[in-house]
Parts: sequence; structure tokens; C-alpha cells
Amino acid sequence: MLSKEPYKGTRDFYPEDQFVHNHIFGVIRRVVEGFGYQEYNAPMLEETALYAAKTGEEIVGEQTYSFTDRGDRQVTMRPEMTPSFARMIARKRHELAFPARWYSIPNLWRYERPQRGRLREHWQLNVDIAGVNSIHGELEVITTAVDIMRGLGAKDDEFEVRINSRRFVEAFFADILGLDETRAYRLAKLIDKKAKISEEQFAEQGRSIVGTPLYPLFASCMEAGSIDELCRILPLEFATHPSIQELGDLFALLGQGGVGNARFDPTIMRGFDYYTGVVFEVFDKHPDNNRAMFGGGRYDGLVGIFGVEPISCVGIAMGDVTAYNFLEVRGLLPKYESNAKLYLSTGPGATFEEVWAMAVQLRGEGIAVCVELDNRKLEKQLKAADKLAVPYIAVIGGDEVASGMLKLKSLTSGAITEIGLKDLPAFLQKN
Amino acid sequence: MLSKEPYKGTRDFYPEDQFVHNHIFGVIRRVVEGFGYQEYNAPMLEETALYAAKTGEEIVGEQTYSFTDRGDRQVTMRPEMTPSFARMIARKRHELAFPARWYSIPNLWRYERPQRGRLREHWQLNVDIAGVNSIHGELEVITTAVDIMRGLGAKDDEFEVRINSRRFVEAFFADILGLDETRAYRLAKLIDKKAKISEEQFAEQGRSIVGTPLYPLFASCMEAGSIDELCRILPLEFATHPSIQELGDLFALLGQGGVGNARFDPTIMRGFDYYTGVVFEVFDKHPDNNRAMFGGGRYDGLVGIFGVEPISCVGIAMGDVTAYNFLEVRGLLPKYESNAKLYLSTGPGATFEEVWAMAVQLRGEGIAVCVELDNRKLEKQLKAADKLAVPYIAVIGGDEVASGMLKLKSLTSGAITEIGLKDLPAFLQKN
Repeated sequence: MLSKEPYKGTRDFYPEDQFVHNHIFGVIRRVVEGFGYQEYNAPMLEETALYAAKTGEEIVGEQTYSFTDRGDRQVTMRPEMTPSFARMIARKRHELAFPARWYSIPNLWRYERPQRGRLREHWQLNVDIAGVNSIHGELEVITTAVDIMRGLGAKDDEFEVRINSRRFVEAFFADILGLDETRAYRLAKLIDKKAKISEEQFAEQGRSIVGTPLYPLFASCMEAGSIDELCRILPLEFATHPSIQELGDLFALLGQGGVGNARFDPTIMRGFDYYTGVVFEVFDKHPDNNRAMFGGGRYDGLVGIFGVEPISCVGIAMGDVTAYNFLEVRGLLPKYESNAKLYLSTGPGATFEEVWAMAVQLRGEGIAVCVELDNRKLEKQLKAADKLAVPYIAVIGGDEVASGMLKLKSLTSGAITEIGLKDLPAFLQKN
Repeated sequence: MLSKEPYKGTRDFYPEDQFVHNHIFGVIRRVVEGFGYQEYNAPMLEETALYAAKTGEEIVGEQTYSFTDRGDRQVTMRPEMTPSFARMIARKRHELAFPARWYSIPNLWRYERPQRGRLREHWQLNVDIAGVNSIHGELEVITTAVDIMRGLGAKDDEFEVRINSRRFVEAFFADILGLDETRAYRLAKLIDKKAKISEEQFAEQGRSIVGTPLYPLFASCMEAGSIDELCRILPLEFATHPSIQELGDLFALLGQGGVGNARFDPTIMRGFDYYTGVVFEVFDKHPDNNRAMFGGGRYDGLVGIFGVEPISCVGIAMGDVTAYNFLEVRGLLPKYESNAKLYLSTGPGATFEEVWAMAVQLRGEGIAVCVELDNRKLEKQLKAADKLAVPYIAVIGGDEVASGMLKLKSLTSGAITEIGLKDLPAFLQKN
């Protein structure tokens, strides 16, 4: 027997599900296009080498769908979009207008145990800007994320932008903690999984990497809730470090631009190995959905790995599953609405051809119409129209064809409106 | 060195390419939603068994991306959408409102040698209706296809709907030609590849299947251009066969509904094994693009293979590559337009923060604005804005901030309009 279920860890999108999906990505499109972002797309299969370089070992080795094609190429179903974005920018490095503001909403694949908020196939908004060197790039992509949250219905006190800097982390690890590259990498990975392990585990592993004498300094830095606080803990001269200056500028710009819910968070690392500057996450503060909805940062080195002149990039991404969970816990899921405004039924004294001709005419005037095709019992038609959330039904009989006057029945209130075919489009567009 | 090229047989969609893609599928959405179709989607991976049953041996065995996942499941990257559609209908057989009018625009994968109009990854519109028993189902999906062609800019005499019936073919093969199932299957496959082989090859293979005495009857039937012509060739009693009656009804309904460019074509077979009734293709008549753009038909048996009560289905599909080729040869490709209406630049006496605040305000009023983030030389900014097809640029200096009056420069005509910030949204929405 053939299975009726979708493949493990994936979802069927029935029309009601697709409606929510379209609502989420409709808001997103409006917002990002308002900043001048252009849509792009890339193939869903890429050669595995594209990810091996910079995505991070764990993801490529254990969490991707990779296989050998019939032409003996190693290919991977894309687990993320940024490598494809960088490849495309590199491919037309000398033809494109910069800055390139691009967005995409690809389907992505991860091979992992499905759990709340993590599926094997998901969709993800990617917003990236290539060719901006200043912190204004970070300002812009963070502002798009904040405007998307607002567009989805979030109030500013319901979410938070948490910002850190890989340049700061690097300088802190090397110059203050005196770590070599290997230990620095291990410490970054430890911080990245801080939320998933116990405080004791974190302290124990942290001590073993940082060393006991410096661990208290490290631990108190990890607790700093602002740049000012951080500067009070660290040596005075560190306050003038370029990464600290840059973070200060970014917070000032965000505040002046109306983004008041951003704060410094030294534990934000982002998993991927390609980030080089500021990194950030947007957190829903709801206790049932306390997780990153957006994540991103600056990755100035990625385009250069294709052997072209490097170009600075900043990007941010959001998955559809976390967006859906956000709308759900906040009670913001939209109510399903039908595209069709009218269900047309053939009544006594009229032919199907006459009703079909009426539908052709109404569609020509921009009205979406469902026509009853099998002339079922009226009761069945009413039930179907109601289940499909079509707001009105009209039964076209001989009288209606002759007079051009329709009895329009509202399927929500049951009220009946008599209306001429001529006036119908205007009425349905309003109601 | 990492490759900058997309994986073989696939395409990168740069913003200008995605713009054309969005144009094509934007027209399509408007049309099919006008008939009350609802959007759905399904996972891009399905278990291989889903295709093995009914898609046709050649496609599953040789032309799919199939592999074993880490949990030892045989999976396939979907080569077509109809099996997923049928699976989803079967899964909620007892909950859905019928008829279910559904459409989707999935990315699909075929493992084959890339050639004009045939790529490894492509997108495809799928329009399907489940739960309609009468020929009105065929009328509706064929009409959506015709309206899409018109929506894309085709004139009715530039394309043609070619219609056949598997029920007719079956009766013709069995009752008139006396073929058993195996020979009938071979003959159907031969007709399916008629356009790809020489007339001699067709005749030779046709004779070997049909037999020499009956071959002339078969051959002249294959030339019939209308039902009437067919009925003059075949025995008189065949004119009353239900499949012939049904085809006659369909042509009458199409004609009455304004579709005058449909004709009977006994060579239309459609490759897939699941069709059970009327089948059709929409052909572009342009000599450089003389190929099927849409294909579809009735497949009443497919939902039943999932072990639920069967339900009648009719569907039609169109690929993005053939749609693109059609627009190209007809000179109907749309000109790229930017989402952003305005490029804002910081001039002498103003700060970036002041310009950014202006952009925030304009976006709040629904105007899409690109802001210059790196304060490059004005010449560079003009070049970038022009390449991005942003229609206007304004340099905001101290005077502009103080007076609220902007000098808006058109990047197409070079004309300069002085305009107040307050009046800008209305101006840009109009121009």
C-alpha cells in the first residue's frame, strides 16, 4: 500500500497552510522590496564543495542530503542559501551594480531528527547586501528584520535584537585571554551551544579552555548586557578597539532610526564559519517561543573564496517554521480567506452554458468566480462553498438569465441581496 | 578552485531573470485564482514508490534523481507534481470540500541531458481539479490554460489546443484494430514519439504492431483533424461511442465559452500512464517554438491507488522554460522594472542619519527607497541607480533637510523636479 503521508520531517501545504505561508512571505516581500531589495533564486542542488569550504563541519558532514549523481558529481541539496548567493555574486563580480540588495525565499534541506521548529525541509527568507563597507549595511539589514517583525504584528517590546561582533570576540580571545586559534575556535563553539547545556557544563568546559585564572573575567564578560558594561569589565584601552567603536555606532544609528529594542549580547556567535564582523539574532521574547527568529551578520570573506576580488557582505535570514510558531503563540495567525468571491450555480430554466458565460464575463471584470460543474444538489453546493470560505453564492435560473438580476446569498450572514449583473463587480470588490 | 557556475542543467536566477519568472507566474496566479483555484505545495522529496506506480517506467528508472536516505528510505526528487497532488487528496479524502481546485508552482527535477526547453531543474504550474465527473472539468482546466496564454500576450491565432481521448484510443485500439493490451501499449508509446521519429520509421513500426491489412485505416485516423472527419473514416456506429460524444460536447462547450482555437488531434497521447479520459496539449504555433506549452488530461484512477475511494481528477501543467521561450520568440518579454522608486544620497551639509530618517518616513508611506550607504562619489551612485533601473535620485544636502524641498532627478530623462517631501509619495506613485 502506498503511503499517504509526506516524507519524514516534511510538510504538505494544504491550501489553508499555504495561505499562512503566503501571508508570512507576503509581509516579508512588501518590507524588503521597500528597501529596494530584488528577488533572486539559485538551483536547489549545488556541488558539495560549495558547502564544504565554509559552512561548518557538523552541518556538511552530518546534516546534509548529499549524494553522487549519475555523472559522478558530488551534490548536496542546499542546507542554506548564503553560499549560493556568494557564488552568484562572484560569478558576475564585474557586471553587477553594487551595492547588490538581494532577497530570496528558497526551500532548504537538513538531514536531522525532526523536532519543534526544526524540520528537514523548510523555507527561509534570505536578505543580503553586497558591496557595503560601513556599519550602515548592518543598520539596513537589521532594520529590515525589525520591520518584518512589526509587519507580522509584533510590538517592539515583544522581541529583541541581540548583537555581537566576531571582530570583538577575536580580539578578546587573542589579546585579553591569550588563546591560540584552536582554543579560540573551541571556545566560540562552546559559547554557541551555551543555551543547550547546563551552567556547570559551560563553566567546566570554559575553565578548561580559558584556564582557571582568566575564567572569572571571561564569565563576567559573557554576562555584560551592554557595551558600557563590557568596557567597565575589560581594560580601559579596549574601549577604543575598532570593533567596540563600531558596535557603539551601530547602536546609536539603530536608536536614531527608531529601533529601540536592540542590545549587546556577547553570547551571540552564529554557527557558520564565514562570519567576519557584526553578528545578530532577533529573539521572540514569548516564553513558549523563546528562540532566534532571525540570524545573520557580516561575512566579508565569502565571495573571495571563488577566486575573485572580495566584496563585503551583510545578510540576515528567517525560517518559515519559527515565523509560524511566532504567529501561533502570539495569536496572530491570519484567518483563511478565499480568492473566489462568488459561487455560481445553475438553477431551473437555465443551462450550464449560460452560467459559464456569466462567469467568463465576471472574470473579465476581475472577479474570481467558482462555477458548480456537476450540477449537484444545492445543499451539497452550499456546503462546499461554505467549506471553501467563498463569501457569496448565486443560483442562476431562467428568471435570472432573462432579467440579469441575481439573488446573492451571503454564506456568513445568510442575507440575500438582489443585484444586477452590471453592479455585481463593484459590490463584490467592496464586500 | 570552487566553481562559480551553477550545477549542470540548472539556472541561476539573477534579479532580471527572476523578474521574468515572477512576471510569468504572476499572470498565471491572477488567472487561476480567478477560477477559484487555491495554492498548495508538497515536499520536494517523496518516497520513490510514489512515482514507481504510475508515472511511466522510463521516467522513474532513467530520468529521476533517486537515492537512499540515511534512514534507508528510497527517495526521489519530484519529477512531476501530480502524484503528490493525488497523495494529498487521498490523505484528506474525507475532510476536503469537493471539487478541490488546486494549483502549485513547484520546482521539479529530471535527470537528463540538458537541451533547449529541457533542463534538470525547472518550475511548473500545476492546475488540478478533483471531484468533477462531467466534461465541465476539462472545459475549466483547458479554459484556464487558454486564459493564461492570453494573459501572457498570445493572440488566439498564435496558439492551439489539441485534444484527444484515451477512452477513444482504447476503444479504437481494442474494438476496431483488435489489439491486445501489450500491443495497444506499444502503439500508444509509438504515437507518443511520432514527432521525434521519421514518417518511415513510424509507418514501419506501426505496421508491425497493427498488421498490414488494418494499417491504412489506422494511418488515416491519425490524420483526422476533427471528430467529423474521424467519424467519416470509422464505422458508422462508432460515432455514438461515449468517448466521441464526450469530445463533441467538449468542443461545443469550448466554442460557446469563447475558445475557438481547439481541435481534435488523435496523436496526442501524453506520456504518463495515469490518464484515463480526455487528454490535451496547448501548442505555440510559432515555427521557432513549435512545441507543447501545456499538457494535461483526466486521471480518474490515481487517487484510488492510495487505498481510498477513487475521485475523478483533471489537470494541466506548464513549465517555466517553455513559457519563457514563448515570450522570447514572440517578443513579449517584459522590461525589467525596479521595486525602488527613489535613490537617496547624502549631500553636503546633511548627515547620513538625516537621510536615513527621511527614508524611514517615505517607507512608512509605502514608497520603496534605496539609500546610499557608503557615501561614494556621486558619479558612482548615479551609475549604480541607473543600472538598477531606479527611476529617480535625490541628493539630500543641508538645504534640503532645512526646507523639506527635494530636487528629484529622473534617471531616464534627466529632468529635475522640485518637490516637497510631503508631496513626494503621491508623485512617485503616479510616475
